[in-house]
Amino acid sequence: MQFPTPIAKLVEGFMRLPGIGPKTAERLAFFVLSMEEDDVMDFAKALVGAKRQLFYCSICHNITDRDPCAICDDKGRDQSVICVVQDPRDLIAMEKTREYSGLYHVLHGAISPMDGIGPEELHIPDLLKRLESDTVQELILATDPNIEGEATAMYISKLVKPFGLKVTRIAHGLPVGGDLEYADEVTLTKALEGRREM
Amino acid sequence: MQFPTPIAKLVEGFMRLPGIGPKTAERLAFFVLSMEEDDVMDFAKALVGAKRQLFYCSICHNITDRDPCAICDDKGRDQSVICVVQDPRDLIAMEKTREYSGLYHVLHGAISPMDGIGPEELHIPDLLKRLESDTVQELILATDPNIEGEATAMYISKLVKPFGLKVTRIAHGLPVGGDLEYADEVTLTKALEGRREM
Repeated sequence: MQFPTPIAKLVEGFMRLPGIGPKTAERLAFFVLSMEEDDVMDFAKALVGAKRQLFYCSICHNITDRDPCAICDDKGRDQSVICVVQDPRDLIAMEKTREYSGLYHVLHGAISPMDGIGPEELHIPDLLKRLESDTVQELILATDPNIEGEATAMYISKLVKPFGLKVTRIAHGLPVGGDLEYADEVTLTKALEGRREM
Repeated sequence: MQFPTPIAKLVEGFMRLPGIGPKTAERLAFFVLSMEEDDVMDFAKALVGAKRQLFYCSICHNITDRDPCAICDDKGRDQSVICVVQDPRDLIAMEKTREYSGLYHVLHGAISPMDGIGPEELHIPDLLKRLESDTVQELILATDPNIEGEATAMYISKLVKPFGLKVTRIAHGLPVGGDLEYADEVTLTKALEGRREM
């Protein structure tokens, strides 16, 4: 005996999600059966709603439900700084710090010749267009601290040199709450290089 | 800046599921955004479909999309044995062994005075009704091997004594592939008690 069809379909649906194997999918499907029907309806609507109502901002390419997005449209934010990130989740992480009040530009990836992703596949041309106006004074490169992210940051920094603006890269070093003993050599070298007077 | 409303709602939906915290919920929500719209629709339909089309079999109380369920309705199965399990997932686990071809009875829980669950809260009266016909010869008690499961098995075995049928309990012992060294004392004691001639 297999599962009844409706539950087999639901298990299959859950298994398409990343990091969810057959056992977890079964557990989640049976949990759904025990939920209130209204809650299940809300969840189903949220799924379809998220897929249908969201798109990318035409200016910064962040995920949004209106164009331009809430950040690009907020005149209270510092219009002279643009922070370049790889994807919308990075933007959310930056926003959670509550330390940054400038604008963003989401590349949707990083340069990775191995995966066939060159600068043309990213939103780099749009970034250059945004720099043509004189309002932007600083470009913060907040791509991931790995090979692809570094290469992308390097590429962009060279590309925007003619604009004559300040280009910065977020700091590498030891994560707060980390342990020096367990830090890898590269991180520790970067932390040493980036040391500051107290 | 918070997430746009549609994605915030979806994250909230995922967070209601067991074992899914805010980070995983975000990851799943962003994955949904990258899925094909048709796949998202199918998943949403599967959620609502599972909730709406499934109910409990009036005979064995297993989850089903028709009444009586596929197992109770299958005349090819051995009608003389009923296996008592705590919940529908236990039934699925039993079926996966492909070693059992009798009927089932799903209690939907176990006796647990601490949680206020007495025999009345379980489907025990219905089980007794099923035993009134003379077709049933054996009752296999396959409740969980923990305090609540043992208590429930004990309770049922005493209750059905007047019916004069064979009542068995699934074996306790070392799990296959396990390691004797790491087995707890109680399991090892049970394994010793249950030893069989080779």
